[in-house]
Amino acid sequence: MIQLQPIGIVKSSRTRMSQGNWGQVQSEIHLNDHLAVGLRGLEEFSHIVVVFFMDRAAFVPSEHLLRRPKAQAHQPEIGVFAQRTKFRPNPIGVTAVKLLSINGNVLTVQALDALDGTPVLDLKPYMPIFDKVEAVRLPVWIAEFEKGYF
Amino acid sequence: MIQLQPIGIVKSSRTRMSQGNWGQVQSEIHLNDHLAVGLRGLEEFSHIVVVFFMDRAAFVPSEHLLRRPKAQAHQPEIGVFAQRTKFRPNPIGVTAVKLLSINGNVLTVQALDALDGTPVLDLKPYMPIFDKVEAVRLPVWIAEFEKGYF
Repeated sequence: MIQLQPIGIVKSSRTRMSQGNWGQVQSEIHLNDHLAVGLRGLEEFSHIVVVFFMDRAAFVPSEHLLRRPKAQAHQPEIGVFAQRTKFRPNPIGVTAVKLLSINGNVLTVQALDALDGTPVLDLKPYMPIFDKVEAVRLPVWIAEFEKGYF
Repeated sequence: MIQLQPIGIVKSSRTRMSQGNWGQVQSEIHLNDHLAVGLRGLEEFSHIVVVFFMDRAAFVPSEHLLRRPKAQAHQPEIGVFAQRTKFRPNPIGVTAVKLLSINGNVLTVQALDALDGTPVLDLKPYMPIFDKVEAVRLPVWIAEFEKGYF
């Protein structure tokens, strides 16, 4: 068993799951005060990777291990690890977002798909060598999933 | 406090930290047997995001909250959240890697910067809308850090 302590919390206007259109949402990340010094230099990056704990998503193996994306009957049944669904064995979210500003221990970001009150586990600078893949191959069903998400 | 159960483990030829040249390393991820069905459909993606727990990296605030990247004296002191160092409050690694093959519960991947025996927390399909930023701004010191890492 691995134990983690949140480093901060998300403040967002979004309080309910599955709303889509995250692209326009501005959220704040409130870092625990004693960690704020660890933000030094982050303002030089345009984007960050937010690692967060989706605390309101309960994984039920019989429902979520295999699932049709967006519950659409015409889609094939897909494994949880081939989807970005929040219902995962470890409900850890990883999203690259635009960093708008940093003031003390508060970061303002654009398009973070995390609800108000979500515990934050880590913040990383977006660095292409870790995060950016130039040429990717994707399944066909992705196109429909992506519509309206951000 | 958040409690997580690993979903699998990394098998790698690398057993020591800080060796660089991860780009040529092929590793396996052995998923727990009962979760293997959750891989269905993942073979259609060329890349995956591996979320892992860097269990041998102990975070010491006085040493790691602010640090010079690669301990180079001519670099500015930078906060932990502006670096990809393994010494973090929550030592969670997030790396996008090439998926070479899946056989049963075993995934073979290229360029995963995780040591042999590292617990795996999550696997996600690499999806550009979550993971890919086209135009990024980066600080100058990144160039030196990147040399020889992958």
